Amino acid sequence: MPGYIHNKKRIQDRLNRLEGQVRGIHRMVDEERYCIDILTQVNAVKAALDRVAVSLLDDHVRHCVTDAVRDGRGEAKVTELSAAIGRFLAG
Amino acid sequence: MPGYIHNKKRIQDRLNRLEGQVRGIHRMVDEERYCIDILTQVNAVKAALDRVAVSLLDDHVRHCVTDAVRDGRGEAKVTELSAAIGRFLAG
Amino acid sequence: MPGYIHNKKRIQDRLNRLEGQVRGIHRMVDEERYCIDILTQVNAVKAALDRVAVSLLDDHVRHCVTDAVRDGRGEAKVTELSAAIGRFLAG
Amino acid sequence: MPGYIHNKKRIQDRLNRLEGQVRGIHRMVDEERYCIDILTQVNAVKAALDRVAVSLLDDHVRHCVTDAVRDGRGEAKVTELSAAIGRFLAG
Repeated sequence: MPGYIHNKKRIQDRLNRLEGQVRGIHRMVDEERYCIDILTQVNAVKAALDRVAVSLLDDHVRHCVTDAVRDGRGEAKVTELSAAIGRFLAG
Repeated sequence: MPGYIHNKKRIQDRLNRLEGQVRGIHRMVDEERYCIDILTQVNAVKAALDRVAVSLLDDHVRHCVTDAVRDGRGEAKVTELSAAIGRFLAG
Repeated sequence: MPGYIHNKKRIQDRLNRLEGQVRGIHRMVDEERYCIDILTQVNAVKAALDRVAVSLLDDHVRHCVTDAVRDGRGEAKVTELSAAIGRFLAG
Repeated sequence: MPGYIHNKKRIQDRLNRLEGQVRGIHRMVDEERYCIDILTQVNAVKAALDRVAVSLLDDHVRHCVTDAVRDGRGEAKVTELSAAIGRFLAG
């Protein structure tokens, strides 16, 4: 059971809003709105994705990694977590 | 006319794919897939958004800013552009 | 002559401060300060680097790219600029 | 005792190199080198800072958070960690 199960509804709501935001950008492009205004919305979607990522990471450490530590399987989970954070920071 | 008009179809195609990717993440959450696998997809969507942003910025400088320079309105356009890039780098 | 020549002193001052900040992080590690406090300083240096980058980009577009547009060499400069911004956004 | 104590020498070496890189950027500005070449170096320093951050985070979770989980103080450590990651992703 993934860690975010404790906040599944909240993550789903955020993803719904994200889908709406991406559709909104698409509409702005269809209507040929000003470049900088579209870039502002693209940036807002990136910030929203970062909040989803932090929420998933929080639940992952709070539940999956914590449980693994208690079961003596912590090392591998931390290595996997660091690789994921590294990929996030790198891009 | 916004700069990206020259690549409107390509931007629209990318946004279509982006919408599909966000729906894919939603589906992974519905199916309670593993946290780290979802984070990998969230990161892929961020990278795709960055490519959309660079494409919009390229066309913006190539057309809107370039035209403004030729018309003697370059200064204001550069100030606006730097503010947009600053917001992007800041998160 | 690079665009930032108009703000050379300001860029040099910022880089002086940045060198001081990095030495400050080094000192915190020498003194074995708390991980999260060091991470906060690492983040502050990244934000300072982004401000240097935006300042360099602003002067680059305002002077180098603008001059190139006036001389009919704009296209190549914009392509080079977009590649640089792309590398920045990608990490 | 901070988690990175296990890699203190390696972190110090990386920070030494980082200080050298920032001095290198300063020298490029003194010599009025081309804007885009300086931006490339600024980006390299950001990437090096991210690697320092990931290394600190890895040791922090592997030692500080893991010890806290074993001592029943895990919750507060995870909340602190998520806040730090959130600040990093936001900029």
